[in-house]
Amino acid sequence: MTSALLARIAAPADLHTLTEAQLDQLACEMREELIRVVSRRSAHFASNLGVVELCLALHLEFDFTRDRLIWDTGHQVYPHKLITGRASQLETIRSKGGLMGYPNPAESDFDLFMTGHAGCAASTALGLKLGDELMGRPDTFAVAVVGDGALPSGIVFEAMNNAGGLKRPFLLILNDNKMSICPRVGGLANYLDRIRMAPTYNDLNRRVKDWIRRLPLVGGFAERTMQTVKDAVKASVNGGMLFEELGFTYLGPIDGHHLPTLRAYLQKVKKLNGPVLLHVLTDKGRGFAPAEADPVKFHAPQPFQKVEKAGGTVSVAPLKANAPSSKAFTDAVSSALFEAMARDPRVSVLTAAMCEGNKLQKIRDTYPERFFDVGICESHAVAFAAGMAKAGARPVVDIYSTFLQRSYDQIFQEVSLQNLPVLFTLDRAGLVGSDGPTHHGTYDIAWMRIFPHMVVMAPGDGGEVAAMIDFGLSHNGPVSIRYPKTALEVVERLHPPRIELGKAEVLDRQPDGTFLVFGAQVPTALRAAEILRRDHGLRVGVVNARFVKPLDEAVILQTLTESPFVITVEEGCLMGGFGAAVLELANAHRIDTRHVTRLGLPDRFIMHAERDEQLAEVGLDVEGLVRAALEAARAAGFPSHPADLMSAPTASANHQAAGLAAGPAETAMTI
Amino acid sequence: MTSALLARIAAPADLHTLTEAQLDQLACEMREELIRVVSRRSAHFASNLGVVELCLALHLEFDFTRDRLIWDTGHQVYPHKLITGRASQLETIRSKGGLMGYPNPAESDFDLFMTGHAGCAASTALGLKLGDELMGRPDTFAVAVVGDGALPSGIVFEAMNNAGGLKRPFLLILNDNKMSICPRVGGLANYLDRIRMAPTYNDLNRRVKDWIRRLPLVGGFAERTMQTVKDAVKASVNGGMLFEELGFTYLGPIDGHHLPTLRAYLQKVKKLNGPVLLHVLTDKGRGFAPAEADPVKFHAPQPFQKVEKAGGTVSVAPLKANAPSSKAFTDAVSSALFEAMARDPRVSVLTAAMCEGNKLQKIRDTYPERFFDVGICESHAVAFAAGMAKAGARPVVDIYSTFLQRSYDQIFQEVSLQNLPVLFTLDRAGLVGSDGPTHHGTYDIAWMRIFPHMVVMAPGDGGEVAAMIDFGLSHNGPVSIRYPKTALEVVERLHPPRIELGKAEVLDRQPDGTFLVFGAQVPTALRAAEILRRDHGLRVGVVNARFVKPLDEAVILQTLTESPFVITVEEGCLMGGFGAAVLELANAHRIDTRHVTRLGLPDRFIMHAERDEQLAEVGLDVEGLVRAALEAARAAGFPSHPADLMSAPTASANHQAAGLAAGPAETAMTI
Repeated sequence: MTSALLARIAAPADLHTLTEAQLDQLACEMREELIRVVSRRSAHFASNLGVVELCLALHLEFDFTRDRLIWDTGHQVYPHKLITGRASQLETIRSKGGLMGYPNPAESDFDLFMTGHAGCAASTALGLKLGDELMGRPDTFAVAVVGDGALPSGIVFEAMNNAGGLKRPFLLILNDNKMSICPRVGGLANYLDRIRMAPTYNDLNRRVKDWIRRLPLVGGFAERTMQTVKDAVKASVNGGMLFEELGFTYLGPIDGHHLPTLRAYLQKVKKLNGPVLLHVLTDKGRGFAPAEADPVKFHAPQPFQKVEKAGGTVSVAPLKANAPSSKAFTDAVSSALFEAMARDPRVSVLTAAMCEGNKLQKIRDTYPERFFDVGICESHAVAFAAGMAKAGARPVVDIYSTFLQRSYDQIFQEVSLQNLPVLFTLDRAGLVGSDGPTHHGTYDIAWMRIFPHMVVMAPGDGGEVAAMIDFGLSHNGPVSIRYPKTALEVVERLHPPRIELGKAEVLDRQPDGTFLVFGAQVPTALRAAEILRRDHGLRVGVVNARFVKPLDEAVILQTLTESPFVITVEEGCLMGGFGAAVLELANAHRIDTRHVTRLGLPDRFIMHAERDEQLAEVGLDVEGLVRAALEAARAAGFPSHPADLMSAPTASANHQAAGLAAGPAETAMTI
Repeated sequence: MTSALLARIAAPADLHTLTEAQLDQLACEMREELIRVVSRRSAHFASNLGVVELCLALHLEFDFTRDRLIWDTGHQVYPHKLITGRASQLETIRSKGGLMGYPNPAESDFDLFMTGHAGCAASTALGLKLGDELMGRPDTFAVAVVGDGALPSGIVFEAMNNAGGLKRPFLLILNDNKMSICPRVGGLANYLDRIRMAPTYNDLNRRVKDWIRRLPLVGGFAERTMQTVKDAVKASVNGGMLFEELGFTYLGPIDGHHLPTLRAYLQKVKKLNGPVLLHVLTDKGRGFAPAEADPVKFHAPQPFQKVEKAGGTVSVAPLKANAPSSKAFTDAVSSALFEAMARDPRVSVLTAAMCEGNKLQKIRDTYPERFFDVGICESHAVAFAAGMAKAGARPVVDIYSTFLQRSYDQIFQEVSLQNLPVLFTLDRAGLVGSDGPTHHGTYDIAWMRIFPHMVVMAPGDGGEVAAMIDFGLSHNGPVSIRYPKTALEVVERLHPPRIELGKAEVLDRQPDGTFLVFGAQVPTALRAAEILRRDHGLRVGVVNARFVKPLDEAVILQTLTESPFVITVEEGCLMGGFGAAVLELANAHRIDTRHVTRLGLPDRFIMHAERDEQLAEVGLDVEGLVRAALEAARAAGFPSHPADLMSAPTASANHQAAGLAAGPAETAMTI
């Protein structure tokens, strides 16, 4: 199928040149384009297939050069990108320099907010509406599209409460596909299921009216009562009472794949004067049978090949040979938690709709009574865990670093202030690659360590993940463990890692300098040290800090005192992070730190790209560490071979050194 | 009235020894005691008078030596303290070493969580329930008491969603007194008003049943329809549909001051098997006419005298002569915002149910169309403001530092990532006195400065508040301004303060050392410098940093380079704070910082006490600064008069020096 019509849509206004039949054809072309592009690269898929008609209807009935549209969470924004002048760039999506996988104001005026964290669209759209009013544009319309997975997020409720009070024209579209990434959960999910199955209001209302017309009237009391009954029927049969009670007009549920219906309802909404919730039913993966059948797998699939069989059925095959994928930190943590649950019946695991991302399916299926998916409700997850901990259980809150920001206040009040043994496992801590700035786990070292009682850890490699989890579960207070979105590398040790509170691991003491690493750059540092030794004659040691709180004061002070230069390494923001903690410690002990170089994330947002590209960009790859060490060495007075020192490591040297982590690290030792 | 009965209640179990009449008498005694104590010291008042019967009923019907009770927000916990063995200590409430004004597990096993931030009780209580299950105590009952003011908080909704899904016995009591601190707002408030006015379900249901009984039945269709009608009537007349839809059984509304009714409903709840919302109507200020008449004023009143007039009417008089109260930072900010709103129609002000605390009444009344009280919904407030800013308005988010933690993720995603001009005014930044650790604004410097684009400021004195607000509103990006809960002090300047991005104010350059102050300790530093000069011959300068981001690199580097010792001063956590930022800057410039001493808040929770006591405890008072300077001077090699240097400043010296800020500071200058 060609994209003849899609090629004609340079901007949403062009949609008005198409007939109804052509619009249907356009929807097909858009789906074909999504399937073509997303099958080639890992990207969000099923949710985009589900909103094609909704996207077209919105752009047909509103003029978003003046009206306001926010796609909540944002990974379903591809159809919107296709018809707002970016169709030809879709192939670049999520790659360095290409389109972002979320709305991006830098790409288009049709993208108002970079979204990625769920639930905020209702608030921002309402803010846009009130802002437009203040700025003398009272007639603009504001629309937020929120998925049913995001609906339980507290902030959506807060926004609805405010909208219900403000009574402004405002459209909240509930895009109900019965899914978060995993199937949705909770009382609200059950409620939406009931609405889906209920007859529509208009339907039943007609039947009830008929019935009431046939009733004999028996005086004033009956009349008044009948009015009550009519109101009651309206209220109850209209499945949206929950929303109506908050001050919204509820419309729906309607078929989200029938463009004329969608347009008719949007036209109706424009005539209403107040907040409206339009309940739209969509199918995640719509139009691509394998994705409709397994929307969890096709939320953001790996590259695949479409296979059309005789009879027109469609299936998929992986695009590459199915190489056994390397284990990631996420797997190691999940396994360690599983083992801990097997040993200790007090251990429970909580997630916020990230069963898939955190690879907790086995835990969910094996220990359903100790596994809690609370939906996209991170604030509640933490306070809920605190309650469990107070009762004597050992809850683990397993949430991405960036999303755990939504629990900041609960980590403060419900956990740190009460000094309760909640274990936080922060997945995706550091740079996450193609999801980009909304998803990086940039800040957690800095914000987590400032809470009293909190122990803040990070495994230096894959080999100590399990031991750290076990330590975290045995510690009688709050603990956080962060780890990146990457494959496991394991440093060979002479003894299995033994985790002690506030104890670092000196992997290699060397006389010329030290890499002082907090987190999974330990293998990178070992490689860099090897290159420095081999190519530059510099003997640089590696310390695996393990803890940023409490710091291993003895090891760090000794390192600062004895090492001619020290390079702190962390995959987190430099401001207030691990390196800053080292400076604070040194300052408290009146130790000079002019020989300390801090490597970490700079004070700006890192755009989407491959994780390796991002690490290179911020100097957290092997070359970056080598470069920093050479500069530090020169500053520290090691210019005996200045030419040597300043020559960059060669690619081949890099390649050879890369074998180090996999092979034996002879110098590695555990103290 | 004596407290004869109250004296007999050493623990809740003792309540069972009382007759119904005696329980009513006990309630009177408890109110008398509350009035007696709270009239003498500033404490939470009206909300405590409102829950006396509810508290008694809960302790009569449950056994909280095993069952679980969380008082949300917690300032209504005084009656609970009175009957859990702490009656004799109530006089000490909120004072150093005395009872905390919130639940405190260190005081009593009946206090499970230190609460203070609204809305988390439902989550923690649900967590306790599930934790008890995991720990083999399936029969314990968990109760959360949540006010209608806290109900719109997103986390309550998240918890209800989860409870509705988990279907465990769990009691959420909605303590509906129609108030936050100020009257409640939003769609939910309107909804609760409607419920209040609706006939109770049982009442109307009976009438409708009667009516239906009298109808002629006309075949199968009518029968089915009638069932629908009956369900509909039940659903509609039962005002709690919103809660029922989430999976809760709704009971109420019931009279929260009638003990037998409360007990009967609690008995009923214990027999139900699933989550229940019990809607209890209470009067804030119940039993004390002046408080009932003005619950806003009596939320936490200043000390007063009860005046009984002929005819039994009661009024109050201030306990002390009505001295004109000194203006606080809060007033100065509110005034500056008011002026800005008068000048610039783009400026809007948002608060989260803190109109009173933030002294925004005049703004609310003068500019109602640009004033938004969103309720206790901090997350929404920030995203809502971001939307307004995107539309071109200039929103100001005026929220206490500690409560703004609830918007952490929205400050990240909706403001910092989008680089939108939202101005954050962080009241109560630093130590807050008798409210204690839940309310201190401890962490904001550290967490706010790590966000890209964010400008982080603090006025050094009251004289530059207005200029900072104006700067914040003119800056084309996000700005935060923090200020403490204290009276204004004004440093006399030769010129009005001029705020420039990233520019510090050198108030006094001196050769021996420098106080480098971020925030309102500037007058304290000036006093300390005066004492050091007069009593110790040390010439110590004072720099008002104004910005922690961006730092004034030139002034700070010069200070670090030229000053024999430097003392950074901030009323925020030392970890990752202003002093840490100075160390980071120095490190980036390879400057030695062994002569830098950092004063600020330590890594532990500071308990309730007077603010002055707390400042002294952490060394942020004049004496603390003098002491730190003397130590730093000795370390820097100024021991020419060691005896002098180490003598503590005398009280009289302190007193004399205290005149400095009010009188002319001859050395003060603006550069």
